Amino acid sequence: MTETQYVHGYSAREADRLADQANTLAELLHHDTAYPPGSLVLECGCGAGAQTVFLAAHSPEARIVSVDISAASLAQARARVAAAGHRHVEFRAANLFDLPFADGRFDHVFLCFVLEHLADPAAGLRAVKRVLRRGGTLTAIEGDHGSWYCHPQTPEAARTVQCLVEIQARMGGDALIGRRLYPLLTEAGFGDVRVSPRMVYVDDSRPRLVGGFSKNTFIAMVEGVRDRALAAGLIDRRTWDTGIADMYRATEPDGTFCYTFFKGVAAR
Amino acid sequence: MTETQYVHGYSAREADRLADQANTLAELLHHDTAYPPGSLVLECGCGAGAQTVFLAAHSPEARIVSVDISAASLAQARARVAAAGHRHVEFRAANLFDLPFADGRFDHVFLCFVLEHLADPAAGLRAVKRVLRRGGTLTAIEGDHGSWYCHPQTPEAARTVQCLVEIQARMGGDALIGRRLYPLLTEAGFGDVRVSPRMVYVDDSRPRLVGGFSKNTFIAMVEGVRDRALAAGLIDRRTWDTGIADMYRATEPDGTFCYTFFKGVAAR
Repeated sequence: MTETQYVHGYSAREADRLADQANTLAELLHHDTAYPPGSLVLECGCGAGAQTVFLAAHSPEARIVSVDISAASLAQARARVAAAGHRHVEFRAANLFDLPFADGRFDHVFLCFVLEHLADPAAGLRAVKRVLRRGGTLTAIEGDHGSWYCHPQTPEAARTVQCLVEIQARMGGDALIGRRLYPLLTEAGFGDVRVSPRMVYVDDSRPRLVGGFSKNTFIAMVEGVRDRALAAGLIDRRTWDTGIADMYRATEPDGTFCYTFFKGVAAR
Repeated sequence: MTETQYVHGYSAREADRLADQANTLAELLHHDTAYPPGSLVLECGCGAGAQTVFLAAHSPEARIVSVDISAASLAQARARVAAAGHRHVEFRAANLFDLPFADGRFDHVFLCFVLEHLADPAAGLRAVKRVLRRGGTLTAIEGDHGSWYCHPQTPEAARTVQCLVEIQARMGGDALIGRRLYPLLTEAGFGDVRVSPRMVYVDDSRPRLVGGFSKNTFIAMVEGVRDRALAAGLIDRRTWDTGIADMYRATEPDGTFCYTFFKGVAAR
């Protein structure tokens, strides 16, 4: 994946969206990942560091190496992690498929929202497996846009979300990868594979998630592909606008919103 | 709802399916429902007692009254609960919309897979609310067939599941009711409404669920409407057979299967 191929782009709003997402979902996704003191951890595809701050916070005595292919993202990640006061993270530009590390160098590998963007995620997993020591663990967290639904649900809202799935597929990714984590990890040769779903359910009794997840994470992510979806002729403007309005409708007090992330942990 | 309108029918295979479902899902759905000693609990729509045995087991010192509109189902429920050794459940034929009990008679009300079959579930909730005392709780558990997806996923499999949704809708029910529990309970005038999703995630590391849920609960339920779906012209035979085969394909070692139930607890 080259820098320009990242489906969500590199805009300031995108950076805010990722930070919002990370804050709201941190507990759900990261609470059970804590690496032991002294262990050497590789984070692949750290982006702007939205997840790195939580990874670092949960493993304060591990040594973390976070790599990304984008120099601009790495600069943001460095600033974000420094601002959070973490001193145990080292950043490095690297391609996941050609990691500049010796075989078996790391005790643990961590990937969050990375496999969804790879044309061959099983090959990506095999590439990172090379730098993982025997007995070490790999943790991968991914979403699955096919897990989304809301109330009231409309065909236009579903069609609008489907645009994001199709655009990501055209860029060689898979927005439905969450449900595939188990077979992917198995296919890549990992053992003791355990996958657990992390469902986000939002109703009016959970106002922090209405803003932090439904509006500022999920709908914002869909809205981010508007121009490309229209330009590609995947949807007409009226259907798009109706779909987005219908999604916001589901964030009102009598609406609900559902989405599921998947977390896989496996051993080399 | 009259007896003949129950979407899943009253066959022996259906009774086995419900028992399989209940055993596999009991912990997920019922573990956090335990009524205090001496409390009077109404179960509405107990059917053949598939859930009643777990309700009774988790509240061994409560007094449970289980009602259903079908005399044949009540006979099965009686036998099932007696076989499980429970002596604290009383059965009675009754229509949920015209319950033969005084206002505020019960400390708690419990409904499992009942609201999905009602043309006006909010009216159903108001009807059972009448017999609940102030401060008592109502617990409702429902599925949501729109929450289903699998890997590999195919359009034919989705179309086949959609037949069940459409047939249930034609019978006046709503197979997508899980996501509506929160607004329904709120609309019916309940307070302190809390809804939690209960997701069933199945992969090869969970063989008990592959049989107990994916095959014998979910696919069996879909297969149950085959003749009606074909007769109603909702789908052609070839698409149906492909869809069912694709669903079984997702139960193989490299497949996954997802479904979400919703449990709501609210106070009068």
